[in-house]
Amino acid sequence: MENILEQNGPRMPSASVDLRSGRATVKRHPERGAYDLETVTEILDQGLVCDVAFMVDGFPYAIPMTYGRIGNSLYVHGAVGSRLLRSLASGSPICLTVTVVDGLVLARSAFHNSMNYRSVVVLGTSAEVVDPVRKTAALRAILERLVPGRWDEIRPPTRGELARTTVLEIRLREASAKIRRGPPVDDEADMERDVWAGEVPLRIRALAPVADRNNTVALPSYLSAINDGTVFPRARRE
Amino acid sequence: MENILEQNGPRMPSASVDLRSGRATVKRHPERGAYDLETVTEILDQGLVCDVAFMVDGFPYAIPMTYGRIGNSLYVHGAVGSRLLRSLASGSPICLTVTVVDGLVLARSAFHNSMNYRSVVVLGTSAEVVDPVRKTAALRAILERLVPGRWDEIRPPTRGELARTTVLEIRLREASAKIRRGPPVDDEADMERDVWAGEVPLRIRALAPVADRNNTVALPSYLSAINDGTVFPRARRE
Repeated sequence: MENILEQNGPRMPSASVDLRSGRATVKRHPERGAYDLETVTEILDQGLVCDVAFMVDGFPYAIPMTYGRIGNSLYVHGAVGSRLLRSLASGSPICLTVTVVDGLVLARSAFHNSMNYRSVVVLGTSAEVVDPVRKTAALRAILERLVPGRWDEIRPPTRGELARTTVLEIRLREASAKIRRGPPVDDEADMERDVWAGEVPLRIRALAPVADRNNTVALPSYLSAINDGTVFPRARRE
Repeated sequence: MENILEQNGPRMPSASVDLRSGRATVKRHPERGAYDLETVTEILDQGLVCDVAFMVDGFPYAIPMTYGRIGNSLYVHGAVGSRLLRSLASGSPICLTVTVVDGLVLARSAFHNSMNYRSVVVLGTSAEVVDPVRKTAALRAILERLVPGRWDEIRPPTRGELARTTVLEIRLREASAKIRRGPPVDDEADMERDVWAGEVPLRIRALAPVADRNNTVALPSYLSAINDGTVFPRARRE
């Protein structure tokens, strides 16, 4: 399922803003590549967490983070003073990767085993968001992406809390999506083998919310809609 | 939820082989860090996909991949000739990150919002596996980790297929785990706020397997145990 970034490859038709660049091009299985803003943002909206890759002292790191989106900008956040956030705020190059796994693809041969998935690789640099209003909007987007309706109920961040939080913006300028769907693709010679073949679909599902022991408040409507089996994130299409 | 790798930090007691290094140390929330082989491998065994971070021409990339484990070695695979696999096979530094999201932690304030999760960051270099027997064992481990019992039913890779597949080994020598569990931790001053607080547990669940249209074989026992709601990967503890 590797999403190869390579210099060359056939140019895909794009329905809208094209996020493709020389290095943001799917080389392996180019037919699985997509570069239009709609496809990229739809996958981003359906991911749960991202990995942010960056370099420190010449070594690569990938760190899981929650994220939010407002228009063509992605936002991540963390504690002020962390080495990660300090590195990222300096404008150094980063890669933000989101993967939605849709199922296991079980072929008749080991070689054709696969997964159905939708992944996005965003390339760019991060910029620190300093303005408190924009910072708050970004934190809101991070929460509301996963739990729509919650932000207005909770206590918003104070000036002091905002000062202790670093928010980074990554503009969506250069990105590729890679998508595999459908049944296994077996070699003709393997079709008669006595082995079951098909897909095992996978979904992220919620269990019923569990109140903390100090809670005295009824489950709000935006959470009571969640019961055992609700697919997450809610934006995900079935 | 960022997993900070930093030079300093309190040393955690370790029950077994210690995978900690100067840079593989959780700085932010050090109480969430763990470095013993048992904790690290248990999380690795329960992940679905990993992101492999590496550098090309001075830029960081993180690419989703499936993976397997045999003892203290992790394995990833891809097509021969891909730029990613060529870069990784050269022994350049990489980072392999696995994240298991256990739930959304909904606090009474924006600042204390969180996730319950278990993540592992493995630092090291990759080495190409050339020997066909070891290569086949690695491919088997990648499949059997997710679908135990399947490998012996399917057609194993031919010499030609093996030659078209690159398998990389990453030895588990330097790694950190970061774990958050439990309810939200709110400020005392927020406890009387009129807002529900608690956790929304999340699980990856399978739907019933879907046979491909050429399939004429009954569902094997290792798949018939999967029905709507089975938690994935199977190794995961409830």
